[in-house]
Amino acid sequence: MSKSEIPYKINLSESELPKAWYNVRADMKTDHRPILHPGTLKPVTLEDLSPVFCTELAKQELNATDAYVEIPFEIREFYKMYRPSPLVRAYCLEKELKTPAKIYYKFEGGNTSGSHKLNSSIAQAYYAKAQGLKGVTTETGAGQWGTALSMACGYFGLDCRVYMVKVSYQQKPYRKGVMETYGATIIPSPSDTTEVGRKILAEHPDTTGSLGCAISEAVEYAVTHEGYRYVLGSVLNQVLMHQSIIGLEAKAAMEKYGEYPDIVIGCAGGGSNLGGLMAPFMEDRLKGRHAPYFIAVEPASCPSMTRGKFMYDFCDTGKVTPLAKMYTLGATYIPSPNHAGGLRYHGMSPILSQLYHDGYLDEARAVEQTKVFEAATLFARVEGTLPAPESSHAIRVAIDEALKCRETGEQKTILFGLSGTGYFDISAYMSYKEGTMTDHIPTDEELEEGFKGIPSLPGIQ
Amino acid sequence: MSKSEIPYKINLSESELPKAWYNVRADMKTDHRPILHPGTLKPVTLEDLSPVFCTELAKQELNATDAYVEIPFEIREFYKMYRPSPLVRAYCLEKELKTPAKIYYKFEGGNTSGSHKLNSSIAQAYYAKAQGLKGVTTETGAGQWGTALSMACGYFGLDCRVYMVKVSYQQKPYRKGVMETYGATIIPSPSDTTEVGRKILAEHPDTTGSLGCAISEAVEYAVTHEGYRYVLGSVLNQVLMHQSIIGLEAKAAMEKYGEYPDIVIGCAGGGSNLGGLMAPFMEDRLKGRHAPYFIAVEPASCPSMTRGKFMYDFCDTGKVTPLAKMYTLGATYIPSPNHAGGLRYHGMSPILSQLYHDGYLDEARAVEQTKVFEAATLFARVEGTLPAPESSHAIRVAIDEALKCRETGEQKTILFGLSGTGYFDISAYMSYKEGTMTDHIPTDEELEEGFKGIPSLPGIQ
Repeated sequence: MSKSEIPYKINLSESELPKAWYNVRADMKTDHRPILHPGTLKPVTLEDLSPVFCTELAKQELNATDAYVEIPFEIREFYKMYRPSPLVRAYCLEKELKTPAKIYYKFEGGNTSGSHKLNSSIAQAYYAKAQGLKGVTTETGAGQWGTALSMACGYFGLDCRVYMVKVSYQQKPYRKGVMETYGATIIPSPSDTTEVGRKILAEHPDTTGSLGCAISEAVEYAVTHEGYRYVLGSVLNQVLMHQSIIGLEAKAAMEKYGEYPDIVIGCAGGGSNLGGLMAPFMEDRLKGRHAPYFIAVEPASCPSMTRGKFMYDFCDTGKVTPLAKMYTLGATYIPSPNHAGGLRYHGMSPILSQLYHDGYLDEARAVEQTKVFEAATLFARVEGTLPAPESSHAIRVAIDEALKCRETGEQKTILFGLSGTGYFDISAYMSYKEGTMTDHIPTDEELEEGFKGIPSLPGIQ
Repeated sequence: MSKSEIPYKINLSESELPKAWYNVRADMKTDHRPILHPGTLKPVTLEDLSPVFCTELAKQELNATDAYVEIPFEIREFYKMYRPSPLVRAYCLEKELKTPAKIYYKFEGGNTSGSHKLNSSIAQAYYAKAQGLKGVTTETGAGQWGTALSMACGYFGLDCRVYMVKVSYQQKPYRKGVMETYGATIIPSPSDTTEVGRKILAEHPDTTGSLGCAISEAVEYAVTHEGYRYVLGSVLNQVLMHQSIIGLEAKAAMEKYGEYPDIVIGCAGGGSNLGGLMAPFMEDRLKGRHAPYFIAVEPASCPSMTRGKFMYDFCDTGKVTPLAKMYTLGATYIPSPNHAGGLRYHGMSPILSQLYHDGYLDEARAVEQTKVFEAATLFARVEGTLPAPESSHAIRVAIDEALKCRETGEQKTILFGLSGTGYFDISAYMSYKEGTMTDHIPTDEELEEGFKGIPSLPGIQ
């Protein structure tokens, strides 16, 4: 197919918006190991999850059998305001790299939240509303998830309480301003609104907070207040399923032009973007229809897949959540400061972890921050869009693979996920530009220290 | 046509991207009065303009005869990375307002510059490159135009020197960061890089600068450096023509569904967004094919059309630029602080001024800032997108017109321009939310003071 026949942006029409999400778990050769209740160490049940999550979302979390789950009408109507998102052929990047490879990216930054997080937040808010709840609670660090949830709750008229890590609350007043504009209440964590918050404040009055502590507060508020539930923006099975809309659209758009990816690349923190992008392509792989090569990209400073252990661990630093078998650096591992806040997670989605363990997710690759921003800056200049630091991890590897094609002459088709925009990360770009950007790659000894925090579970691990 | 038949977003395909811009001036019943050389007070010629503007852009500025001007291939290729931009049917806003009106908006914020300014900056950079120039200079206040120009120059590999009003340079380091990421050089103005800057610094060492001074510096640098020209993001005829892409796409998208606007609404600072949006609809009006009603919306704090005078005046505060016959508050008028930085201009595009004077642009309406942010916040919640303060002026009037339809029962079709997003204006939203937002409406005495600055030109005015 000649260049002129494939447009820069392949926009599906709204009538082509997928009508069902894809739940890859139903087709996995080996299911991920069950999530364990932190008290009993038994697999969690719907009854265990229902006080924390909406009932429908708890069911989705445990659903290992239905491959396709219908997207409710109201969610589809909201999706239509910003979806189908464009699949972009990166002609200008290809030209700049002088590569014979064809590069496509699925762009999820074209909504006010600036990332793919809105795909799941609107679904979670919908189910909360449908259940007649008053509101939802969550935590946020850098603020992308909190913004997406605020937008979704504003739309459905739900109360939205966001526990924001205190240091981010102080450093990112504009993120707070956006969330408040959509009607959310933002509480700097730790706070005196919860038992756990008051305890931490009594012990460490000057603490600037942590994501672990914010999760603990959000969960406590939800389970102790009538009509509230807790919601989360990554890691969970339900989130990966909601995000499958990314991959389903990408696949449909490529098929229109007779294209299919040889390589699928996504950044991976908790796994929501890569998990969503790869989903329908993984279905093809699991069913032997196609054999695309999957690459998960993570920061060298937080290398859970490339250097972590595949073990049961807590999903949060505070150890109040269930345990999942996943690639982990230890729930108490604190990665060094890195501008890709969305990738600084100690663990990895249990689904992606299992697929990686079983060899279906082919490769995990860790990349250094300065190399990531080098790619991000080049991308911005030739493709126009300023990418989020998280997404730029995928750009880095897409560029590297395209450059390999230049060496070998192969005309591979590369698809990567451009999960969001970098509007709120300009200070990171400035530090790159000024040459002051650093990246700490943990030593083996530092990782060993983190691994000590992984619980010893004889007979279970 | 039933609701379900018109999608939320009408996306034209790339092959439907307009192939020519529309120059409304060629069809105006009365041409605007000529632009005058500030020294001789004679109409400016191509020779006068060529040391300041690229030759091709100077020709476009003076072109009063060609209605359609072909868009060069290279500009169309760049447009394809972010255009055609969506025309959105605001179903959720209609529902919220319980109005029988049909509301459409043309959304220009879906690119990294966050506004429509990129449509003209890429054209201006292209002509500079085609002429073999080294670079361009410009001024920026809030930074939208500077960002758009930086992106365009980064793409074509042109040097880009942006004189940024010193107070903005200090208060908006992130805007500076974005521009630098695209390779631009940002100079706080006044600076010691120009004669005029050094003079001002000597007289007022503590000044925080002004747009007028930044224009003077940018022009001086361009005319005194080999291979440089000056570029501007609004007011000019060439800019309105480049921006006609907005209206041409909007009209084509509406025609697909048998729709035509009864009312066309745009915010107006220098006139680039409204001028672009209304262009092809104005062609219909001038040729008697349709009679849409046009409304220009301006801030009550800077009411150039509603309370200004239609006279020859300087286009800049520094009085170094040519004189144009336009609606003006006087070149030395300083509007009170207002969050819509892009609308704080003392004058108005000569084309729009003439059309307003002749009754083709039907109405100008001034709106207060708190009312604008009330509309903006409602829009964000129900339509998702966080609008720029400038664009929110158009939203305010679109809502008011839709509410009138609720009273009368008329099913009018309203089209407004959503010229950009509010990512860089969160502090304004916070001040609205906190109830600290104010708006100074100038008294008649204050306006009289400004009018004194309009030059007396017997025999010309």
